[in-house]
Amino acid sequence: MTNEFLFQKIKEKKSFLCVGLDVDLEKIPKHLLKEEDPIFSFSKAIIDATHTYAVAFKTNLAFFEAYGVKGLKSFKKVSDYLNDRYPYHFTIADAKRGDIGNTAARYAKAYFENFGYDAITVAPYMGKDAVSPFLEYKNKRTILLVLTSNTSAKDFQYSKENDLLLFEKILKFSQDWDNSKNLMYVVGATKSESLKSIRKIVPESFLLVPGIGAQGGSLKEVVNVGLNSQCGLLVNSSRAIIYASDNYDFDIVAAEKAKNLQLEMKDYLKSAAII
Amino acid sequence: MTNEFLFQKIKEKKSFLCVGLDVDLEKIPKHLLKEEDPIFSFSKAIIDATHTYAVAFKTNLAFFEAYGVKGLKSFKKVSDYLNDRYPYHFTIADAKRGDIGNTAARYAKAYFENFGYDAITVAPYMGKDAVSPFLEYKNKRTILLVLTSNTSAKDFQYSKENDLLLFEKILKFSQDWDNSKNLMYVVGATKSESLKSIRKIVPESFLLVPGIGAQGGSLKEVVNVGLNSQCGLLVNSSRAIIYASDNYDFDIVAAEKAKNLQLEMKDYLKSAAII
Repeated sequence: MTNEFLFQKIKEKKSFLCVGLDVDLEKIPKHLLKEEDPIFSFSKAIIDATHTYAVAFKTNLAFFEAYGVKGLKSFKKVSDYLNDRYPYHFTIADAKRGDIGNTAARYAKAYFENFGYDAITVAPYMGKDAVSPFLEYKNKRTILLVLTSNTSAKDFQYSKENDLLLFEKILKFSQDWDNSKNLMYVVGATKSESLKSIRKIVPESFLLVPGIGAQGGSLKEVVNVGLNSQCGLLVNSSRAIIYASDNYDFDIVAAEKAKNLQLEMKDYLKSAAII
Repeated sequence: MTNEFLFQKIKEKKSFLCVGLDVDLEKIPKHLLKEEDPIFSFSKAIIDATHTYAVAFKTNLAFFEAYGVKGLKSFKKVSDYLNDRYPYHFTIADAKRGDIGNTAARYAKAYFENFGYDAITVAPYMGKDAVSPFLEYKNKRTILLVLTSNTSAKDFQYSKENDLLLFEKILKFSQDWDNSKNLMYVVGATKSESLKSIRKIVPESFLLVPGIGAQGGSLKEVVNVGLNSQCGLLVNSSRAIIYASDNYDFDIVAAEKAKNLQLEMKDYLKSAAII
């Protein structure tokens, strides 16, 4: 999916919401545990309920891997369902992979080819040659971790070299890599104070922003400094949507939560004269 | 598995060899492709042929994930085989995972509990709270990426802040984390010139050293500066062992290659009066 197509969808749906599928069997409604594949049943219901309000879905690999082969079978079913039923939604495998070139190429094959995702999140620590195998896929997006939403992000991401913080250095360097137009970046909503300097380095890039809701980031603050003329934002919410109710009405309540975010986003897009 | 037990095994086997299972269906002997599960058949044959000379096995997740659900089923079979048949070998899931706390906890559950590994490789970029869920497993080892074997390692890992390189900062910081005794570190064999400064910071830690063989690192150089009184090294070889022959004799040739490395290691252990 191209950035232009994604922007078109954002305008059509008046939304830049990404719904995150972090499926935890201890948190989903109890009645679903009787189903043959509770992870898939829950994911399908959430997807069907929220797709109207979202332009993107993000699956979180750890939550599937935690259940071993069974979890990975559910992951395949969820991925296939997204591809078959919602081919115009932008799909992100939140895998945060990163390894030497020949290994990175295998991860790219797994998520872009085998599971059919539009994008994957990738860790930057190992540098250019660990990311380039992902960037070689012309119609796919590689979403590089830059500034993450967790408290310990400060441990290393703010390391300073010649007045340049590490996450800024990664942004700058990566702009010179081959196929850098295929890059997007992860910036945590809890780090909106750094969004201004990030937007100076990558004014046109799409940013995937996790951390609103359960992690405490503010959508308004993110929009204030993060929005660009092509929107340039995908804001993710996982727990605050998918676990808003643990009862029979879970999908209805999830849809309401997603709709509330979408309506807020619509206002921001209007204020910025994007729609 | 404790470090003391691992050291005991190193002395018994006169080896600190880790055999890496990076199984690529395009590189394994053609006759195995007729088997029901070629990935497992190849892995099993390599494990059986080399276990005498190795103290550890490392599975590389990317190579299994590349084949989707089928690959993950093979991964489970290989992991179970290692646990059932070779419980005294140190097993490493080379997954290079790294994510916020609640997600990291799911990865820890996946590899330590579900797939039963002794250790997992973890990326440091997100800081302490992304690593601590792994460190909470008392009898498991968390192997933090510090200085990797690839060319682009220099892009960010050598970033300098107040005379401290980023990989040195990670080493220092991580020593103060809770349960830091459960940490080991990845240091590429191609970076042996930095091993001296690494050993100054972590004189007693075990280092997992990939990059000899196909990537061009030298075992001798690694040993010269990396060996400590408890050995402190696990040196990995993947491609140079497992793809030494692509014919019917692949397991025999793999065993020869592993044996040659083990004999070299035995000499180094003797010279250092460890055995």
